[in-house]
Amino acid sequence: MHEPRERGGGSGAAPTRADRARRVAHVLRGQVLRGAFPDGVLPDERALVAEFDTSRNTVREALGLLRDEGLVARRQGVGTVVVGRAYQHPLGELSGLAEVLQRHGVVVNEVREARSVRPPRTVARRLGLAEGGPAVYLERLRRVDGTPLSLDCTYLIPEVGEPLLARGRDTLEKHDVFDLIETAAGTPLGTAEVSVQAVVADPATCAVLAMPAGGAVLAVERLTRLADGRPADLEFIHLRGDRLTLHATLDRARGGPGAAHRQP
Amino acid sequence: MHEPRERGGGSGAAPTRADRARRVAHVLRGQVLRGAFPDGVLPDERALVAEFDTSRNTVREALGLLRDEGLVARRQGVGTVVVGRAYQHPLGELSGLAEVLQRHGVVVNEVREARSVRPPRTVARRLGLAEGGPAVYLERLRRVDGTPLSLDCTYLIPEVGEPLLARGRDTLEKHDVFDLIETAAGTPLGTAEVSVQAVVADPATCAVLAMPAGGAVLAVERLTRLADGRPADLEFIHLRGDRLTLHATLDRARGGPGAAHRQP
Repeated sequence: MHEPRERGGGSGAAPTRADRARRVAHVLRGQVLRGAFPDGVLPDERALVAEFDTSRNTVREALGLLRDEGLVARRQGVGTVVVGRAYQHPLGELSGLAEVLQRHGVVVNEVREARSVRPPRTVARRLGLAEGGPAVYLERLRRVDGTPLSLDCTYLIPEVGEPLLARGRDTLEKHDVFDLIETAAGTPLGTAEVSVQAVVADPATCAVLAMPAGGAVLAVERLTRLADGRPADLEFIHLRGDRLTLHATLDRARGGPGAAHRQP
Repeated sequence: MHEPRERGGGSGAAPTRADRARRVAHVLRGQVLRGAFPDGVLPDERALVAEFDTSRNTVREALGLLRDEGLVARRQGVGTVVVGRAYQHPLGELSGLAEVLQRHGVVVNEVREARSVRPPRTVARRLGLAEGGPAVYLERLRRVDGTPLSLDCTYLIPEVGEPLLARGRDTLEKHDVFDLIETAAGTPLGTAEVSVQAVVADPATCAVLAMPAGGAVLAVERLTRLADGRPADLEFIHLRGDRLTLHATLDRARGGPGAAHRQP
C-alpha cells in the first residue's frame, strides 16, 4: 500500500504507465475543452514529454486516450489536432441551451416530434397532471453551425405545450423553449431541478447525434417550474460528451449552496 | 419532415422503435437513479407496457439499454432489478464528495499516491505557482460501503499540501480534503470553478473503479480557491456514471445564475 511520506517523498508503489497516462490525459482533456490550443494543434510529443516530465510512451498513451474519446486526432504532417469544437454551458444559468449556444454560432433546432401524448405515469405525476390526461411531447435536435450537440426530449403541461404546438414548426425551430413557455404561460419561469449523469449513448442516440458508437453523453434531467411553483416542463437532454462541458462557479461561504455562472 | 399539427395531432413520420425505447429508458433511468423502486425491482413488462402505452418489444429494448448501462440486471424468477445503489451529489454544495457521501454510508478514501511533484506547466499556471516549483499530488479512491465511487486526483499548492502530507496517511483516508485544506491554510475556502463532462472511462480507470469496460464516467475538473482568492487545489475527479448523479436547483429569476442545493 502507499504510505505517504512526511516531506515530499514518494508514495511507495510506483504508479503504472496507465496511471501516468491517465494523469497526463486529465490535464490535456481540460485544455482541449477550454480551447487552450488556439490553432487547434497540440504541442508535439517532445514538448509534452518536457511539460509533463514523463516518458514518450506515456505521452503517446495519454494521446491515445483522448483519441479514443474523439477529442483529438492524429493528422499526417501536422501532429495531434483538436477534433471539432467544444462548447461550454454555464450550468448555473437557467437558460435554454439555445440561449447559451447562440453566442457561439447559428443554432438550429430540428423538430423531430411535436404532439399531444398520454405521458408515462411517472412523468404525469412529476408534472402534477391527472393520470391518463394529455401532455405535449416535443423532441428536438440542436445543432450549432451544423454540428449536432444535443437531443432534447420534453414533456410539457398542456397549458404551456398546446400554445407551442399552435405556434407551428418554424417557431419551435428558431426559439428557445424557455422563452416560448414564458410567453405561453404569461409568467416567468421559476426554479429548475437539474440532475446530471454520464451515460454511454445507445446506438440510436449516437446515430442521431452523429457521434461514434459507444461514446458518452451527459444525460440531464431538468424539471422546470413556473414562478408560482407549478411544474411546467420535464426535459431529458442528451448532450454530446465530446462537444459540451457544463460549467459552474460554486461558493462555499454562501451557506454551502449558491452557484454563480461563468461566461464560457 | 415532421410538421407539428396545431392541436394534439401527430408529428408526421412515426418514431422508430429505437426512438420509442429511448424515450421509455429516459424515464426509467431517472427512476432507478432516484431510488423510485424501493424494493429494487422494476415493474414487470406487462405493467411497463401499460404505463408507457407501448409494445412489449419496446419495453424489452428499453430495459436492454439500461442493462447495457449497468443500471439494471435481469434476475431469474424475480424480473428486472436495480444493480447496486446510486448516490446523488448536490452540485451546488461546495463540499467534498466525502462530506456528502457520509450521509449514505461508510466512506473510505484509499490513498493511492501522496507526494511532492513537479506539476505540469498548465497545472502550475492554474494554481498560480512558479514554473518548475513543487506541488503536492494526492490521488484517492473513494468507496462508500465498499463500492468504489470516484477516483480523485488532486494537485495542491505546497502551502496547503505539505501540511496534509505531514498529517500522514490515516488522516487522508478518513477526512475530506476540503476540511484538511481549511485547517492547513487557517482560512476558509472561497469559490470553486467546476466543469463537468461525460467521458468513456479508459480501461485503467474502469479497473480501479471496478466498473465494466467501456462504461461512462462524469469527469469533473474543480479549481478551488481560498477565501482570499488564491488558488489552492486543482482536482480531476472521475465519478462512476452508474453510481453517481449530480444535482442542482437553479433559479431563473435570480438574475440568471444562483443555484441552491437540494438534499439527496
